[in-house]
Order: sequence, then C-alpha cells, then structure tokens
Amino acid sequence: MEDYEEILGKLVEKLSGPNVSEDVIAEVAKKATANTTTDEKTIPVGVSNRHIHLSQTDLDKLFGKGYQLTPLKDLSQPSQYASKETVIICGPKGSISKVRILGPVRSRTQVEVLRGDTFKLGIKAPLRISGDLLNSGQVTVVGPKGSVELEEGVIVAQRHIHMLPSDADRFGVKNGDIVTIVIEGDRGGELNNVAIRANDKSGLECHIDTEEANALGMNSKTRIRIK
Amino acid sequence: MEDYEEILGKLVEKLSGPNVSEDVIAEVAKKATANTTTDEKTIPVGVSNRHIHLSQTDLDKLFGKGYQLTPLKDLSQPSQYASKETVIICGPKGSISKVRILGPVRSRTQVEVLRGDTFKLGIKAPLRISGDLLNSGQVTVVGPKGSVELEEGVIVAQRHIHMLPSDADRFGVKNGDIVTIVIEGDRGGELNNVAIRANDKSGLECHIDTEEANALGMNSKTRIRIK
Repeated sequence: MEDYEEILGKLVEKLSGPNVSEDVIAEVAKKATANTTTDEKTIPVGVSNRHIHLSQTDLDKLFGKGYQLTPLKDLSQPSQYASKETVIICGPKGSISKVRILGPVRSRTQVEVLRGDTFKLGIKAPLRISGDLLNSGQVTVVGPKGSVELEEGVIVAQRHIHMLPSDADRFGVKNGDIVTIVIEGDRGGELNNVAIRANDKSGLECHIDTEEANALGMNSKTRIRIK
Repeated sequence: MEDYEEILGKLVEKLSGPNVSEDVIAEVAKKATANTTTDEKTIPVGVSNRHIHLSQTDLDKLFGKGYQLTPLKDLSQPSQYASKETVIICGPKGSISKVRILGPVRSRTQVEVLRGDTFKLGIKAPLRISGDLLNSGQVTVVGPKGSVELEEGVIVAQRHIHMLPSDADRFGVKNGDIVTIVIEGDRGGELNNVAIRANDKSGLECHIDTEEANALGMNSKTRIRIK
C-alpha cells in the first residue's frame, strides 16, 4: 500500500485532461490531506495484510491479455484500491491463497508478505521500503490463466509514515528520517526503525502490517505518536 | 507454555516417590537453572505458536477414555512437551487445524491463541496470564473421537518472563512486577506490560507469541533485556 506519490502523480496527470471538474480535483486534495487535522500530536494507523501489486505484463500472464482489475474497496490513500481479484503465492515449502491484488497496476510487480509468511513459504524476504526490490525474495505467483516466477520482488514492508511536508514540519521530521513510534494500550510499546515518507501527495498515516498490529494491540482505529 | 511451577511441582511430588534416582532430580534442577549463567544482562526468548493444554477429562472426550498423550519434543521448561497429537479449534467465523497439544495434562483446559486467530475464529479472547481464565474466550475443540465446547478457557497470552528468585534479585525485579523489555535489530523496539514470574522452579526465559516475535524480528536465538 505504498508509492502513493507515484499513483497520485498519475492521477493528477489524468486529471489534467480537458474533462475534469473542479469537484474531482477537490476530492483528490481532500483525500490527500485527510487525517492531518484530526489530532495535532497523533497519527492514524493503516494496517496491511499480505498483498501484491502487479505490473500489467504480469496481470496479463495471470488473468489474460489486457485484463483490467475490478476495484472492490477504496484504500485510504488516493486512487489506491483493493481489487476483487486474488492470486496464490507459492514457495518451496508452501503456498498462500487469496492474496489480495492492490490496484492500479504498477511498473513492477511487488509482493509484500508477513514475516510469518516467509516461514510458511520457505523463502527469505528482506525488510525493505516499497520499490527497493534488488535481490529481494522469490515466489511463484499463480492466477486463473497462468503463473509468473518472480526472480525478485518479495519483501517484508518496513514500517513507515506517509505525511505531507507540512506534517513533517509539525512533527519536526523530514523525508527519509528514521523514527521510533510510541503505542499505548495493554500491548503497547515502541517500534524503532520507522521511515518517514514526506511528500505533497500523501495523507498522514502510519503503515504497519498485521503482525505488528496484533503484537502491539493496534487496529485501524489506533493512533500512535512519534517519540 | 506456562504454569511450569505447577507442572514442576507435580513432577517433584512424583519424584519424591521411592524409585527416583539422584540423577533424575539433578536433571530437573539442571533444566530449571539452564540459561541463567549464559549472559548476565540478557534473557533468552521462547516463542510460542497457538497451542492448547487439556484436562484429562477433555482429553478423554477428544481422543477416547484414558488416552495418553505421545510426547514429540521436550520444551525448554522442565517436564513440558509438545505432543504428537493436535486438535481443531472452531469459532463462529472459522476454524484452525493442527493446533498442538502441550503436555502433560492440566487441571483445566486452556487455549492460547494469537490475536490474529481471534479474528479468523470470530471470537474474543482477553490478554491474560496463564491460568486466569474467568470469562475468557469460547471455542469448540474437535478431536478424532469427539468435541468439547469450552464455555471459557481461550486467552491471548500476556508476555512474561520466567525466572528464578536469584535472577529476580540480579535484575532488580520481583514476582508479579510488570516491566518493559528492549529488543535490538532492524525491527527492534520495546514491549511494555511484560509480567515477571519468579519462583524456584522456572528457567530464565521470556515468553512471547509468534506475532510478537515476527513484529519485533525475534526468534528463538534472540536475547532481550529488561529496560
């Protein structure tokens, strides 16, 4: 659920066409800045389960030439959606079915798994920020019309916080910083090595995976703060 | 994987019989004090997946009258073992198969699930220390010879540290204290609300579940420290 800047960039490009109303542009701006004014000191949490982003080339191989994903549910970040379609991912020790595809398509296929999934699949997947795929993990992706053997592209997502530059100023951080976040509650604690991803196309949200959420007692209603 | 004191208590009781050699007693003592001298400042980690402890009554219902568990692998704490046998646990929304039974049998049946399992099963299970089962979660347990509907007994285990009183002195804590632990590494951080369980029958070990281990980048070789 990353690379919103890329996706929003494309959307803005699309919106620059002649048929776009001011309302649509206002809606995008509203989504991009949602959550920035709710609470001055805390940050909402977005919890990701394992998922996959596909290139159009790989989508064609898995679902058939020229296949278009069917949006099922909008995600919090503008233009991103969970699709109706899912795939199976397979490693040497096991497979995981019903892995949700997130749309729209990207330039490269990327699989984001949980650490626990790597044991089940029998693969190694490095802890990485989205898009940093060099020498990352390998799986075979299986769809209804074919399969794709990924030489690389499987990562465990490094926890990170999307924010606008104005949020970064407010929190005293900058794009690329690594921070520690503080979580309250009966399973509370602190998580180190959280990357700041600040640009003018991202709504304020701290992205963690389901294992991190469960271990620290977090859910989609949790708000965290930077230490 | 808790209540070692209870289990060891029973074992010691058993060992007090006329046929017990000094060697056996020495072995128990050795296991109980293992890990206490490896490193003065750090504590080894024991990672638990979901599992179940059964009463003999429930074991009878699930596997047949008078059934005895088959030890498969010794656990780190004296007399505890993972058994060959597994069960299925079922909630209103789903089931989980191959849930390992830990032996020996206990006075009450207790199911320790991951937080993620509670969503899959569609149940609520409180965060509790082992044995504290009043108004805890409900599941149906299914075995090859029958099933048991548990009115209560399902918990998410509160993270805790077993230690000897001498360890407690060394770390400056006492039985019942709540501490924060510090975890190093690229997924490092701190976990609050870790219970100290100090008595003279427990080897030094910090018990967490697989979601906590994965979220913080821990495994069975990790050593943590008390903050």
